[in-house]
Amino acid sequence: MVGASAGASAMYAAMTGMGHARPSNYAGPVKLEGDPKGTSVLILGAGLAGMTAALELRSAGYKVRVLEYREKAGGRCWTLRGGDVYTELGGHKQEVKFAEGNYLNAGPWRIPSDHYAVLDYCRRFGVELEPFIQVNYNAYVHNSEAFGGKPQRFKEIQSDYRGQISELLAKAINQDKLDDLVTDEDAQLLVESLKRYGVLNDDLEYVKSDAVSLYRGWQTDPGGGEGAEPVASDIISLSDILRGRLWNDLITGESIDHQSAIFQPVGGMDMIAKAFENEVKDLITYNAKVIRIEGGETGVSATFVPREGDGEEQTVTADYCICTIPFSILSQIEHNFSADMTEAIESVPYASSIKIALEFKRRFWEQDEHIYGGITYTDLPITLISYPSTKFLSDGPGVLLATYSWGAASYQFNAIEHEERIELALKYGEQIHPQYREEFSSGVSVAWHRVPWVLGCYGEWRDMATHYPQALKMDQRVLMAGEHMSYLPAWQEGAILSALNAIERLHKVVTKA
Amino acid sequence: MVGASAGASAMYAAMTGMGHARPSNYAGPVKLEGDPKGTSVLILGAGLAGMTAALELRSAGYKVRVLEYREKAGGRCWTLRGGDVYTELGGHKQEVKFAEGNYLNAGPWRIPSDHYAVLDYCRRFGVELEPFIQVNYNAYVHNSEAFGGKPQRFKEIQSDYRGQISELLAKAINQDKLDDLVTDEDAQLLVESLKRYGVLNDDLEYVKSDAVSLYRGWQTDPGGGEGAEPVASDIISLSDILRGRLWNDLITGESIDHQSAIFQPVGGMDMIAKAFENEVKDLITYNAKVIRIEGGETGVSATFVPREGDGEEQTVTADYCICTIPFSILSQIEHNFSADMTEAIESVPYASSIKIALEFKRRFWEQDEHIYGGITYTDLPITLISYPSTKFLSDGPGVLLATYSWGAASYQFNAIEHEERIELALKYGEQIHPQYREEFSSGVSVAWHRVPWVLGCYGEWRDMATHYPQALKMDQRVLMAGEHMSYLPAWQEGAILSALNAIERLHKVVTKA
Repeated sequence: MVGASAGASAMYAAMTGMGHARPSNYAGPVKLEGDPKGTSVLILGAGLAGMTAALELRSAGYKVRVLEYREKAGGRCWTLRGGDVYTELGGHKQEVKFAEGNYLNAGPWRIPSDHYAVLDYCRRFGVELEPFIQVNYNAYVHNSEAFGGKPQRFKEIQSDYRGQISELLAKAINQDKLDDLVTDEDAQLLVESLKRYGVLNDDLEYVKSDAVSLYRGWQTDPGGGEGAEPVASDIISLSDILRGRLWNDLITGESIDHQSAIFQPVGGMDMIAKAFENEVKDLITYNAKVIRIEGGETGVSATFVPREGDGEEQTVTADYCICTIPFSILSQIEHNFSADMTEAIESVPYASSIKIALEFKRRFWEQDEHIYGGITYTDLPITLISYPSTKFLSDGPGVLLATYSWGAASYQFNAIEHEERIELALKYGEQIHPQYREEFSSGVSVAWHRVPWVLGCYGEWRDMATHYPQALKMDQRVLMAGEHMSYLPAWQEGAILSALNAIERLHKVVTKA
Repeated sequence: MVGASAGASAMYAAMTGMGHARPSNYAGPVKLEGDPKGTSVLILGAGLAGMTAALELRSAGYKVRVLEYREKAGGRCWTLRGGDVYTELGGHKQEVKFAEGNYLNAGPWRIPSDHYAVLDYCRRFGVELEPFIQVNYNAYVHNSEAFGGKPQRFKEIQSDYRGQISELLAKAINQDKLDDLVTDEDAQLLVESLKRYGVLNDDLEYVKSDAVSLYRGWQTDPGGGEGAEPVASDIISLSDILRGRLWNDLITGESIDHQSAIFQPVGGMDMIAKAFENEVKDLITYNAKVIRIEGGETGVSATFVPREGDGEEQTVTADYCICTIPFSILSQIEHNFSADMTEAIESVPYASSIKIALEFKRRFWEQDEHIYGGITYTDLPITLISYPSTKFLSDGPGVLLATYSWGAASYQFNAIEHEERIELALKYGEQIHPQYREEFSSGVSVAWHRVPWVLGCYGEWRDMATHYPQALKMDQRVLMAGEHMSYLPAWQEGAILSALNAIERLHKVVTKA
């Protein structure tokens, strides 16, 4: 986006100097200047990294060919809709029964507004974005061991925690207990700020009041006409919040990766995959299972067989190769990479993650509980429940992301069959939403360790300082790319930036040669 | 929404008992049972209150007629678009020059998700809603007297303020300074929670680090491939934040009226007005300036003349009247209300407020500064700048709400002509966005004290305890309704709830008679 016009570019430069904008790893559409003189590049994998490389290399004059294991492009940028069929490792086949317009984004589901590369490709391709509601003050925080297992509204815990810590600090300062930590001048301003920040009264107390109810919500909402006066709500004591550990997710939505503004493509994340695919599909050979990669001083070749059934080996050769195959898969493919590269490839276990989406007959979270989008956090193994950020107030069935767990919490889901996963999501979820059983219609589960083409969610470097530089080096005319080759693991931005960086390095080699 | 089905209703009741849901002043579509036996009701004003009353009374069997001053319905639910012409008090005429699809919501512009009545009418009428981005961590907080006048990113101030107050409190507790305020058991949990809440290190310090940069943003963002390691950002000292008073708007977006989820109708707020009007337009007489209201024991009459030009007086009579005319206007109309009602009508000054929208040739806030929706707060008289929550990443002109001020800050805008207001908005705004002058194309200003049909923004009761009950009583067969007759002043929800309450009270009188 930066550099759309000379004026804008100069303005941006001026503003950067002013401290308005930060240097980003993405500095606008890549420019590969200089003639590649017919150099050919073989790209392995038609995920976002592979398609970015294919698109930009062709446009710079390279001869490009892409091999893709699946029957379609996108990789982990993958949306499941009614009618889709998905067979996981182990052979279990799911047929998605969601109603028209409902979906699960099995992989990435959010686009932070500082993911400039993804946003810029969306802009270039005309992929329409809509706000993703990450934080919803009317959603819940839930600890099955606290408050009798009852979920608490985020707004109440958020307001009450902040108010009561502000009260403690304001009082401590007022009682001169922090004189060694704060100057007199700052102390006065600090107390003034805490009154505002914590919604404290003139005695520096956070107490049941209209002022406080304006943040945590009312006992009885204000209305119109007669008998319409609002009633202030009781507050929850700091002690109860602390013992219930409900403070744990108060700032989860405020990290740079989740903070507002944050987006999703209208209609599903794979709108991005489809937009890329639309540009480069003529370059892609689908259903191609790579079984051997051999590079050398003059070129590189990849041998593949049909993904399913019997079929002859075919070999493709090119001057160079961009390999975006996840290391979890690549480590199982025959290759002649150096010892260093081999060590790197074998040093990246892939994270475990499970997503379960449940479709319900009606949007009870909106109709009964006034939760429109956003996320409920729980200590249960489902980790969270995310409400759809689209089709608000609509009739008909809606889909919840009813489980999104990683690490230890996800293992129990990986180990069981699809139907049991759905049952588990229902069993846990109904502790938060008692409507679950009555309203449930169908479910989809994606346990990433069982996804055949990646066998995990994203690459987790065991020793990044040692192995990442090894994996970066061109080896046998092959350069690695993909989310694992970035400091933004698991994010589409990381995949795209890694591809852009790889092709820039490749182009330097080619045009210098 | 509640009560859409018997099952849902029972579920809701059960959940209310569980503390999941709160009683609202809005309990689902109004039910007026019992035959009104041909009773006629005259409604004055076709804003949201008047149209709610008209719609529901007709559907309950009443004979309804509405008199409206303007040439269209909606009242303050009013959206200005390219081609619209608006003449303010004093005669200045504005012709809006905005591009197709751009607009200013001159009155209400947001729908909080606890405004159940507005949401339910949107649902019933099929008015499509989209998220309104209230809080944007990449927007600014700005004090013209601090940081050399440079705006600061909300995310940096928010993270640094919270981190440093958490550090102070955690250290104070750790040094046993708060033993009289916190029990030992709570103290340990409190420190643990503050570490998480404030992003403190093991020494309970909030310091420059990768962990902190994950919330306040990086100096250099993480990228992909080579040289992609992120660089942590410097923090801003608590002292600087306090002296710059940049803490003032940290929780503005967290009040019950602004907290996420919050919505806007797709295409402009008047989509709601149009949806209501579509239902009741056959009942409305437009361009009718009411000059006299006379009620008595057997009925009520209103006399009107054409809004413009010469025209004969016409008188309409009915059994009862719902009057939604703002008290600022009603106090200037001849009537025979009781002394109590008259006193009430004259005791409600109307708040001052100014909105200025500027159209720019391109969306520089997105393209140069990566601000997608949300609000920048400033101490300048423009008070805030709000970025559009729609058409993200699009080319072509975009509209900013470049001033939204009330109270003292708005007076200087009321007193000057439209062109000077625009100049003022540019002069102040360019301190935050230096692109303003170069990119400006046209502007619209609405100073509510100069809006002929309301002469102010909303009713501010001088002594609500005394006068509100007086104004509630049926007087000369007239009941008052509108946002001023509610505990949600200035909000559409207040207008609708006041109308629903008024017609329920009216219906009791009628069916008892």
